[in-house]
Amino acid sequence: MRTIVFSGRMVVIGCGSIGQGILPLILRHIDIDPARMTIITACERGREVAQEYGITFINKALTSDDYRDRLTPMLRKGDFLLNLSVDVSSVALVELCRDVGALYLDTCIEPWPGGYTDPGLSPSLRSNYALREEMLKLRVPGIPMPTALVTHGANPGLVSHFVKQALLNIAADTGQAVETPRSRDAWAALAARLGVKVIHVAERDTQVGSVPKAVGEFVNTWSIDGFVGEGCQPAELGWGSHEKELPPEGRRHEFGGGSAIYLMRPGASQRVRTWTPTEGPFHGFLITHSESISIADYFTVKSGDAVSYRPTVHYAYHPCDDAVVSLHELAGKNWKMQERQRLMGNEITAGIDELGVLLAGHAKGAYWYGSQLSIAEARELAPHNSATSLQVTATILAGIIWALENPDRGVVEPDEIDFDRILEIARPYLGPVVGVYTDWNPLQGRGELFPEDVDTSDPWQFKNVRVL
Amino acid sequence: MRTIVFSGRMVVIGCGSIGQGILPLILRHIDIDPARMTIITACERGREVAQEYGITFINKALTSDDYRDRLTPMLRKGDFLLNLSVDVSSVALVELCRDVGALYLDTCIEPWPGGYTDPGLSPSLRSNYALREEMLKLRVPGIPMPTALVTHGANPGLVSHFVKQALLNIAADTGQAVETPRSRDAWAALAARLGVKVIHVAERDTQVGSVPKAVGEFVNTWSIDGFVGEGCQPAELGWGSHEKELPPEGRRHEFGGGSAIYLMRPGASQRVRTWTPTEGPFHGFLITHSESISIADYFTVKSGDAVSYRPTVHYAYHPCDDAVVSLHELAGKNWKMQERQRLMGNEITAGIDELGVLLAGHAKGAYWYGSQLSIAEARELAPHNSATSLQVTATILAGIIWALENPDRGVVEPDEIDFDRILEIARPYLGPVVGVYTDWNPLQGRGELFPEDVDTSDPWQFKNVRVL
Ligand SMILES: NC(=O)c1ccc[n+]([C@@H]2O[C@H](COP(=O)([O-])OP(=O)(O)OC[C@H]3O[C@@H](n4cnc5c(N)ncnc54)[C@H](O)[C@@H]3O)[C@@H](O)[C@H]2O)c1
Ligand SMILES: NC(=O)c1ccc[n+]([C@@H]2O[C@H](COP(=O)([O-])OP(=O)(O)OC[C@H]3O[C@@H](n4cnc5c(N)ncnc54)[C@H](O)[C@@H]3O)[C@@H](O)[C@H]2O)c1
Repeated sequence: MRTIVFSGRMVVIGCGSIGQGILPLILRHIDIDPARMTIITACERGREVAQEYGITFINKALTSDDYRDRLTPMLRKGDFLLNLSVDVSSVALVELCRDVGALYLDTCIEPWPGGYTDPGLSPSLRSNYALREEMLKLRVPGIPMPTALVTHGANPGLVSHFVKQALLNIAADTGQAVETPRSRDAWAALAARLGVKVIHVAERDTQVGSVPKAVGEFVNTWSIDGFVGEGCQPAELGWGSHEKELPPEGRRHEFGGGSAIYLMRPGASQRVRTWTPTEGPFHGFLITHSESISIADYFTVKSGDAVSYRPTVHYAYHPCDDAVVSLHELAGKNWKMQERQRLMGNEITAGIDELGVLLAGHAKGAYWYGSQLSIAEARELAPHNSATSLQVTATILAGIIWALENPDRGVVEPDEIDFDRILEIARPYLGPVVGVYTDWNPLQGRGELFPEDVDTSDPWQFKNVRVL
Repeated sequence: MRTIVFSGRMVVIGCGSIGQGILPLILRHIDIDPARMTIITACERGREVAQEYGITFINKALTSDDYRDRLTPMLRKGDFLLNLSVDVSSVALVELCRDVGALYLDTCIEPWPGGYTDPGLSPSLRSNYALREEMLKLRVPGIPMPTALVTHGANPGLVSHFVKQALLNIAADTGQAVETPRSRDAWAALAARLGVKVIHVAERDTQVGSVPKAVGEFVNTWSIDGFVGEGCQPAELGWGSHEKELPPEGRRHEFGGGSAIYLMRPGASQRVRTWTPTEGPFHGFLITHSESISIADYFTVKSGDAVSYRPTVHYAYHPCDDAVVSLHELAGKNWKMQERQRLMGNEITAGIDELGVLLAGHAKGAYWYGSQLSIAEARELAPHNSATSLQVTATILAGIIWALENPDRGVVEPDEIDFDRILEIARPYLGPVVGVYTDWNPLQGRGELFPEDVDTSDPWQFKNVRVL
């Protein structure tokens, strides 16, 4: 059943794990002639998949010098630019789309190559906070602009919608019948009223394969360049109003909205305590992500200039086991990328990607809401996808449809769009979507073998969450 | 070719990865009737191997209540007690052997069950330092005692002999022709003269298997109980005279010889920078080991009561990749052991155990000397062994032969016995044994993405080695 007719042209940049995985979903749900689709990419990956669907495949990397000249002839008003690449500036592409009147969607605000690890930039300027501020500057009040839905994958993306559903569920389960909020202020007020102190994007990927990781090889279930890039950025987190002290390595940015802080270390070197239903307690990595900043910003309540409420928001990511070892190896080489990379595909034999949001500090303790998609179910649901990619591509699909339905909204973040419309479209691809309460908190089981410096008066201080 | 005739009885306690692996070596090199051998163990593991060799197998755990009653009838003067178990007190067994006149060898000074993780004991008393002090107290000057060779596996054990060979090689390569030292003082003086500041036991196990680690399963190439036990003890290191400052979590013991310090955290949570020839730089875990203390002690030079020279000595262990992930999972559960354990055996498909000593700070920078044994070669050399176990069992074999040749030496540590005799016996089982110089030091490649607090005036300060 096609959901929507699209008669424009679509240019897809990048054809890696996500670029390949989105194609069957687009062609299944959007009425578009594949002959009007073009892929521009920087490697041979995905050529056969493009051929299978009859989509033009151009392997020639976009650069900051040529992207305008090459893309302008391909995009007219109402066309669609879907950016699923690494190493191409999202801000540059959104400006181009604004100029030609095309719609835009990406799943990450990417800089040009090296932007994540340019030692000439301060850590503050290598942050997602800075990249997001750059993007938000393209909003000029009063000037209409075609929809550019940024950071709309699984996370960032889907998890923002999970947060809203989770808030409604917690409200219902604590006897606070509420109308679905219709504005940012009302959503933030709901989170504040429920007493949510902390939102973790808590993800445990248990996918394993039949080929063990080799020495000198980085193995992952999605983009290795993408993951290493963000893993080498500073750890970042939306900084809640309940936090008593900045962590020793914590710094505030000297510009922008101020909803987040960063740590003076790569996110891939900072572990944090979190919880998912299947795994129970575990250590995730505090990888920076745009949602840590946008969710914290969205749910901020201000009285005048002062912040009266904001949750602490961060990612706590346990990638697949092979990626955990790959990160360990990478750290041992002072963050110099391994010589070989392997994106797991057909060799995956088992596992799930358990991806959701953990909202904590409220009357019922902590609540995880999210998707528990297995590799087996993902393969039944769509070709060219793993459990990890399908959570992303389902959300991209939903975002494209939403953008086509809402073509003149300018630059928007996931938090700012209709969460129920997105969940409606994406849900059939997410496997079991569950909400589970837990009495777990980061003080449980601590200090048994050695004394630990914890704040027992408030389990949800970041001090208790981070692993030393 | 049998090396030595042994007409006494031999009791082997424990029949895990090491207990099974030693049997073919003993029966190949020592002329002993298997009918005079008895295995006492606490599980069914190894029953078939014992049967294969015609050795009595008793599956009934020794306890602090019954060990004397059960073992005394089995051991007369000149018999041999080979302790390859976990959870049986080494000190108790050595006292028993002293009383009955039997020879003794173990590969680890073990306490009775729970001794590593009894929260009722201070971290100082849960340390290997404390266990070693207990053992050394059994030496009573002037009172003869049968040989009890303690901690004589690969590490602790073999690596002490590697250190001596490495010192001789560095001396030769720096043009300092020396006689092989004949006393502890002379060895320590040599290390001091060469300017060795740091000795890492630098190990990288690259063995991988055909069965991926499952969630909730601890996987390793040798004793999981043994590894988790020592991983939960405090991190410990022999504390060198060149060190400028105690680490923030560092503590000195209030008793004993004073050659080592401990950190107020489990060794399995403390990473350190090190180097091996095949791997290059990597992060190992600062797991406590007896050799860190005994080597530092052995090579201490004193002027009166003051220490004028001592190297910093510690283990820097990169276990097999599945064990790295197992440790990550264990830490996430606050050191509560996984429900399932799997000692890798036949499913190992490839890899080496690169185990050696890295001596650094001398005129030629750093020098690694050790064994690079592959699983394939290990399987050719001896049945019932992996690359990891064979490095251990070859050294146990050499230790048994040395003890039989030197039956009245009382409690001795590896550092105190003839290194060349041990290497002569063990070497055929060690695969390539190589010595390699490197200009690597722990300041290389540091501080590129983020500023780091390092001591640039001396690369070999522990401050530079530990990972924050
Ligand atoms: N929000 C989410 O949940 C989520 C999840 C996964 C991936 N992502 C993001 O999606 C993007 C793609 O991820 P992936 O897993 O498919 O990555 P991938 O590494 O598998 O593929 C990246 C693709 O980009 C192409 N590319 C690189 N440089 C290019 C250039 N200069 N011009 C054109 N194409 C270029 C590559 O050739 C490749 O096809 C990344 O930005 C990643 O961070 C987001
Ligand atoms: N120095 C080294 O290089 C080195 C290397 C590997 C192992 N080790 C040490 O060797 C020992 C054995 O290692 P492994 O890998 O064979 O361990 P393992 O876990 O494979 O086997 C341990 C054995 O001890 C037995 N055991 C447990 N409790 C017992 C009891 N109360 N009475 C009798 N037997 C008991 C178990 O049944 C099992 O057979 C450990 O102390 C370990 O730390 C030392």
